[in-house]
Amino acid sequence: MNKKVAVILSGCGVYDGSEIYESVITLLRLDQRGATVQCFAPNIAQMHVINHLTGEEMPENRNVLVESARLARGEIKDLSEARAEDFDALIMPGGFGAAKNLSDFATQGAACQVLPAVLELAQSFASSGKPVGMMCIAPTMAAHIFGPGVVCTLGNDDDPAAAASREMGVEHQACEVTEIIEDSKNKLVTTPAYMLAQSISDAASGIYKLVDRVLELTNK
Amino acid sequence: MNKKVAVILSGCGVYDGSEIYESVITLLRLDQRGATVQCFAPNIAQMHVINHLTGEEMPENRNVLVESARLARGEIKDLSEARAEDFDALIMPGGFGAAKNLSDFATQGAACQVLPAVLELAQSFASSGKPVGMMCIAPTMAAHIFGPGVVCTLGNDDDPAAAASREMGVEHQACEVTEIIEDSKNKLVTTPAYMLAQSISDAASGIYKLVDRVLELTNK
Repeated sequence: MNKKVAVILSGCGVYDGSEIYESVITLLRLDQRGATVQCFAPNIAQMHVINHLTGEEMPENRNVLVESARLARGEIKDLSEARAEDFDALIMPGGFGAAKNLSDFATQGAACQVLPAVLELAQSFASSGKPVGMMCIAPTMAAHIFGPGVVCTLGNDDDPAAAASREMGVEHQACEVTEIIEDSKNKLVTTPAYMLAQSISDAASGIYKLVDRVLELTNK
Repeated sequence: MNKKVAVILSGCGVYDGSEIYESVITLLRLDQRGATVQCFAPNIAQMHVINHLTGEEMPENRNVLVESARLARGEIKDLSEARAEDFDALIMPGGFGAAKNLSDFATQGAACQVLPAVLELAQSFASSGKPVGMMCIAPTMAAHIFGPGVVCTLGNDDDPAAAASREMGVEHQACEVTEIIEDSKNKLVTTPAYMLAQSISDAASGIYKLVDRVLELTNK
């Protein structure tokens, strides 16, 4: 198959960066399906650093690209080097980093902005008809990327992130953790992952479907 | 099945902590097989902090338990709370953290010492006849835990870690990344993982076998 897939990371750890399980399961499935992967992350400061043992903020400064490099065994590039024309598809795992470092959804809710480099890259994939996969909290960027009427899931309909996304113009669809939602017009595939997952294998079943469907859509 | 498995982490990132892919794949497989998992890490300072983008040391101090908590979504306990009698098996993923924070193999080679809390816990599993799984560089602790004559793999026979382990009394066996080595007497299962892996799915195939065999050995 040998499809080329760009993956955008947002740090390393669910509370201030990329959700590690979601990211690794995404990379595992892409490799199992024969895709070539390149990870990217923005070379910016993290919004903050969270002690994942206590949940408290730490008096530290960390860089999103440097910490994301942990998740990619050093095999990562600055997001500013990413070009949609070099790839067949784009995938964005979740974790609070997607809502703290790639956008400011965590603090601004429906009034959020998406980091320009992320927005431009994702819109390049969209306008070239290339599929995009987003999981967990990452689809809170869907309204900015695809515009009003985009169909996606953030898990349960009554989740505050779903409500805020509807306010931004998203057509939200509830989805089980083991399933995916597809917006055929926009070639956007989403899955709740750790918006709902009670276990790592729960999350994996939805993420495997997302990766498989994104790869299928590269042929359509 | 509902076996209880303790997993010892050593930080979060291949160059100064636990290898993230190995750790997540271990946790995924354990969950898929119905095991109940508890992660532990020592509450000590990391030997150092490596910038995973450049490979250079950073002027920072990080705590092994706090950083390991990233890998476990916060669901982790201090290693001092771990008791072999509460579990059916023990698994230690690799990454340089196993040779920098759980032991000092990275700097001392064959003259290394294993962190007393790790040594005591692992020896409790061994003396109770409970299986232990170790991957990647972690089996450099096998000689201290199991004594001379223990059989394990660190990948290729000519790897410096294999040579140092032989010096410590290990009976080293070369092993493909997709396979495992079992010491039946000691109920120790090892796999090379990122000592040899060229891809994440390579690593996964060996780790899946390790997890499956460790769980099988809990019944023997």
